[in-house]
Amino acid sequence: MPNSFGKLFTISTWGESHGPAVGVVIDGCPPGLPLTASEVQAELDRRRPGQSDITTPRKEADSVEFLSGLFEGRTTGHPLAMLVRNADARSEAYDEMREKFRPSHADFTYTAKYGFRDHRGGGRSSARETIGRVAAGAVAKKILQLAGEVEVRAFVAQIHDIIAPTVTKFPTLAQVEASAVRCPHPATAAKMISRIKRVRSKGDSVGGVIECRMRGVPVGLGEPVFDRLEADLAKAMLSLPATKGFEIGSGFAGTMLKGSQHNDVFVNKRGRIGTQTNRSGGVQGGISNGEEIVFRVAFKPTATILQTQRTVDVRGASTELKARGRHDPCVVPRAVVIVEAMAALVLVDHWMRHVAQNGSFKF
Amino acid sequence: MPNSFGKLFTISTWGESHGPAVGVVIDGCPPGLPLTASEVQAELDRRRPGQSDITTPRKEADSVEFLSGLFEGRTTGHPLAMLVRNADARSEAYDEMREKFRPSHADFTYTAKYGFRDHRGGGRSSARETIGRVAAGAVAKKILQLAGEVEVRAFVAQIHDIIAPTVTKFPTLAQVEASAVRCPHPATAAKMISRIKRVRSKGDSVGGVIECRMRGVPVGLGEPVFDRLEADLAKAMLSLPATKGFEIGSGFAGTMLKGSQHNDVFVNKRGRIGTQTNRSGGVQGGISNGEEIVFRVAFKPTATILQTQRTVDVRGASTELKARGRHDPCVVPRAVVIVEAMAALVLVDHWMRHVAQNGSFKF
Amino acid sequence: MPNSFGKLFTISTWGESHGPAVGVVIDGCPPGLPLTASEVQAELDRRRPGQSDITTPRKEADSVEFLSGLFEGRTTGHPLAMLVRNADARSEAYDEMREKFRPSHADFTYTAKYGFRDHRGGGRSSARETIGRVAAGAVAKKILQLAGEVEVRAFVAQIHDIIAPTVTKFPTLAQVEASAVRCPHPATAAKMISRIKRVRSKGDSVGGVIECRMRGVPVGLGEPVFDRLEADLAKAMLSLPATKGFEIGSGFAGTMLKGSQHNDVFVNKRGRIGTQTNRSGGVQGGISNGEEIVFRVAFKPTATILQTQRTVDVRGASTELKARGRHDPCVVPRAVVIVEAMAALVLVDHWMRHVAQNGSFKF
Amino acid sequence: MPNSFGKLFTISTWGESHGPAVGVVIDGCPPGLPLTASEVQAELDRRRPGQSDITTPRKEADSVEFLSGLFEGRTTGHPLAMLVRNADARSEAYDEMREKFRPSHADFTYTAKYGFRDHRGGGRSSARETIGRVAAGAVAKKILQLAGEVEVRAFVAQIHDIIAPTVTKFPTLAQVEASAVRCPHPATAAKMISRIKRVRSKGDSVGGVIECRMRGVPVGLGEPVFDRLEADLAKAMLSLPATKGFEIGSGFAGTMLKGSQHNDVFVNKRGRIGTQTNRSGGVQGGISNGEEIVFRVAFKPTATILQTQRTVDVRGASTELKARGRHDPCVVPRAVVIVEAMAALVLVDHWMRHVAQNGSFKF
Repeated sequence: MPNSFGKLFTISTWGESHGPAVGVVIDGCPPGLPLTASEVQAELDRRRPGQSDITTPRKEADSVEFLSGLFEGRTTGHPLAMLVRNADARSEAYDEMREKFRPSHADFTYTAKYGFRDHRGGGRSSARETIGRVAAGAVAKKILQLAGEVEVRAFVAQIHDIIAPTVTKFPTLAQVEASAVRCPHPATAAKMISRIKRVRSKGDSVGGVIECRMRGVPVGLGEPVFDRLEADLAKAMLSLPATKGFEIGSGFAGTMLKGSQHNDVFVNKRGRIGTQTNRSGGVQGGISNGEEIVFRVAFKPTATILQTQRTVDVRGASTELKARGRHDPCVVPRAVVIVEAMAALVLVDHWMRHVAQNGSFKF
Repeated sequence: MPNSFGKLFTISTWGESHGPAVGVVIDGCPPGLPLTASEVQAELDRRRPGQSDITTPRKEADSVEFLSGLFEGRTTGHPLAMLVRNADARSEAYDEMREKFRPSHADFTYTAKYGFRDHRGGGRSSARETIGRVAAGAVAKKILQLAGEVEVRAFVAQIHDIIAPTVTKFPTLAQVEASAVRCPHPATAAKMISRIKRVRSKGDSVGGVIECRMRGVPVGLGEPVFDRLEADLAKAMLSLPATKGFEIGSGFAGTMLKGSQHNDVFVNKRGRIGTQTNRSGGVQGGISNGEEIVFRVAFKPTATILQTQRTVDVRGASTELKARGRHDPCVVPRAVVIVEAMAALVLVDHWMRHVAQNGSFKF
Repeated sequence: MPNSFGKLFTISTWGESHGPAVGVVIDGCPPGLPLTASEVQAELDRRRPGQSDITTPRKEADSVEFLSGLFEGRTTGHPLAMLVRNADARSEAYDEMREKFRPSHADFTYTAKYGFRDHRGGGRSSARETIGRVAAGAVAKKILQLAGEVEVRAFVAQIHDIIAPTVTKFPTLAQVEASAVRCPHPATAAKMISRIKRVRSKGDSVGGVIECRMRGVPVGLGEPVFDRLEADLAKAMLSLPATKGFEIGSGFAGTMLKGSQHNDVFVNKRGRIGTQTNRSGGVQGGISNGEEIVFRVAFKPTATILQTQRTVDVRGASTELKARGRHDPCVVPRAVVIVEAMAALVLVDHWMRHVAQNGSFKF
Repeated sequence: MPNSFGKLFTISTWGESHGPAVGVVIDGCPPGLPLTASEVQAELDRRRPGQSDITTPRKEADSVEFLSGLFEGRTTGHPLAMLVRNADARSEAYDEMREKFRPSHADFTYTAKYGFRDHRGGGRSSARETIGRVAAGAVAKKILQLAGEVEVRAFVAQIHDIIAPTVTKFPTLAQVEASAVRCPHPATAAKMISRIKRVRSKGDSVGGVIECRMRGVPVGLGEPVFDRLEADLAKAMLSLPATKGFEIGSGFAGTMLKGSQHNDVFVNKRGRIGTQTNRSGGVQGGISNGEEIVFRVAFKPTATILQTQRTVDVRGASTELKARGRHDPCVVPRAVVIVEAMAALVLVDHWMRHVAQNGSFKF
């Protein structure tokens, strides 16, 4: 099921950018969770286009409709189906792309794979697909919060070559949301915003890096061998549009250290076993160790730019393409909530898997 | 199934470092594949300990025994079970670890998760688990070779802070195997080897980066949305012991470019549509585009070092640990064949998934 | 995923009897299938309540809305989401059941399992859940028809103790639809209809047996060992509300024969290898052998009857319950299209699995 | 994965009748279960050929070897791999079948599906494949016993046309094992044994019916909608060689009753809610209701008989076949332990799934 994610807490998204609606079904949601549409809506609003002057001007209210799985304000344990209508799709903006492949876009590979061509708005490869992920992520975050005060916080750590100082304290949601770019360091945020505006003014685009932290995660989540927590996080992140890299803890930089420098020494932290440093990023042997989980995700610059680019048409002939349509000059700020959603989904799923194997029977 | 990988071409590994044997079952293997034990053995020999003077001296022949799934030299379509006996396990070397947690090792998290402690040799978290992956990978590579002359080639691109020049031509197997460190650039390989020897002489360890390339991959492999080819490659790589990062194509460095610099322009390459550059790394929208697939994996320095380290014991009291046992000062050279195996497994699985959806019916 | 069915052609149903809507998402549908809403609607109309005077009078148009997965009249290969609004739910009819458990109904077990109680209309256990199955089954049948002229035909073979003569010729759809009870033998159909009317007049209910046949199925579908074709058919059928038994080919009666009487002798049928008799029911060793697939499903009498029954309330105290609401005195006639849907889904899924393993590579 | 069964407690079997060995890997086994090889061996001995004078004389010790997953007498939570060597395979007895298809056997369909022919002993379709199921079932039964004193007891209810009286009390293991035929009613058992001997003397075979009961099953196991407990039991049973039917509770006979006769009235049983009768067979709405689970499985007569039968050869030409080899004249007595194994596996898997969804979080 290529459009599903998660083994026990499973989400299935559906819908295209220019179809009537997009949505998600959550299967396996624990019963009894208090949940309101406004909690889901709040997260969708963080993802929504048109929320600030550095995002695409496409106008979408992205109002969520619950179709099943709630009864008297609580989840029932049955599938939770949610739907968001598409409103402001302007297919005519894509007319020029009817016969021309957009460089570095899913356009060509989709056509080759499926043998047909829906040139409008990227179809299923559009970022609108992530609406379902964010809606499901809102449910997962609520579970984590109620179950153990687990917090999931993503933020922008880099835009183009502007790199924010290393975060030393778990950022608050307010700190992240304080700027349109979702970088909790205000001075850097201001620079990032002007950079995005500048590239947009030239019809160009930029990428960046999102960092995500999770605190309060219990020891023991993650499965050896193939379903390590970091393996499933990596898959979750690389399943997002425009991502090109993932690293956890010390990541690529850690390859520059020796073992004696890199190892996290165990210490007794007020009665629990913890580590003095956190180069492991909160996982050891694929399993959470109780420290903060810390990972980073690389996003390439948006492929659709408003400059003339050389390309080929569907017959393979050389041509030029100047895209129209409304596109984000930088997807990274809006992707923050999507990264959080996917991280929360991974955590809830692994939590259930852990309990299934280790909590079902007493011997 | 945490110990299985792949949806249609599925491998399940089993076995512990200090148990009687390790092994793998492949389910879903296409029937009719010509296969001999020596082809699998050749790959196991590349992974085997004691193969050179920069690896652990543990002596293991790692001879593969086929238990099922072959008939008259060809696969039958039924499960292919393979087994390798453990020979040279020296559990007594682990006596000091009976009560002390090894820093940055799976030791503590396994104990916390499962409620018991097998202190010997890492149990299931040992790199011996990867024997099954390599054996299965040998089968996958054979399929790819016969099916379409698809080649999978990994090599060492960095050890500690020694970085090899960028590879401009697809390396041959002979070039990779020419040095014990498996870096195809001879001068760099020599430096890497002396660095590994030096850190080993101090009881220390180093990590590095493996690059993997695949050529001949047909257009169309990979599934939107969650099972993108790069998402499954990322999961496969982060499921390997000691990995901390994954990037495809331009990766983290690509975040420094603008869209106008990053986009891969489409061109007509002797009748097929290709791209002029390959910052995408061979995938667009999660689907292979016919260009070389290029990704990199970060390996941290080996956690088990032969120096005295501070740690805590199973009761949480501070103590010191000086590991004994036979350990690799750097796992990266032996991991080359494991990276290839996992990459080949991902490719075969996605190939079968692609054909299932797009080749089963004609309308 | 308890609410999903199928490994490669996967359906996920959602929705409750008294919620706003019910629906289904198909994931893995081959691209390029010509499909219209009216083709799906035609099947839903066969399942719909109020279609004849022997079914529940609940009024539901059951109009299907396509939300995704179609483009210019063909499937895209992406999720096909379909939705049907609930219209005529009368929750107040269930007021008496707010505190009393309905005998032989999912009511008690759902309450015990999930820890809450949605007394209205059965919630997720309602037959309205099968709308999604029928809609997905319409797509599967279309695939089978276009792919190989495979036909799936179910019909009523028994109502209460009225047993239709053995079918000797594959019935046409018209023959099945000729009577409200969907028994292709007209004289028996008439008796069945009057039996259903008589028991309804007494507030009682009856069950029966549906037979299903599939012809044109290619040799080779079904997987040893656990995913035998008959195993997946059995699961599909026992997943339907009110089913208590499944048999294929000679079934339970076949246990009365000796091997020499039961074996199906192989013969050469105009160039293809076939069997003279079909006690195997079209499968051998779990794999289709090219003969007609023939199976039967037992449905118990509807649990909800309009007579006073003894029961207990939610606190375990003895009480009496007289159900109101609108219920089928016999679900069997409407279940015919549901049986066909599930059978078609199993077949398409196995077809794709077969091709994936046996058609992906040539050696 | 056609050779795997179970979602959370997953078994994967491998091995052919005439290969070197058969085996099983259990993935997801809870850690800490006390387990010895002799407990598994005891179950294998109940399945073993040559155990009595009504079974095949093939001599196989069927000694189990544990390869992984146990440490100091307890399961570790990691894969439990078990292996049984084949000893007495006599491939030459199958020479006549090299070119002739055995009627009602997997022989033809396997050849058609996989494009090659292993004529010896049925290959993967052999009953030897069930060794792995029985070994895994022994583990599942141990879990059920320790977790909640859940008992699983199968027995022979019918051989050919000899039907045992309805069981009114849960039979003890000793009562079942008292006769070679495993019918707990001694007088009927004697008749069954002489029937089997008589048909064997004529080179013929018979089938029969196994009934299975489970008591102590907690309320709440089973998942709506597709993964109903009875659906997974039906699949498990129809995945066994030679099965043709499954029914639960009132089964096919229940179709002869009216709703007012069939419904199980709820009563207060010393503080717990139970039912007065058990036509439901222990499940309602797909979920266990705390009553005994009762189901029956139909086995056809053994296909391989020692009489001359008409058939075709691999080229489709008419011919005759007189099988040699050592075959059971009736597989039903040996299948008793296999039915128990599969039932126990389904129960453990659903138990873990139930806890995962309903026990992971408290709100």
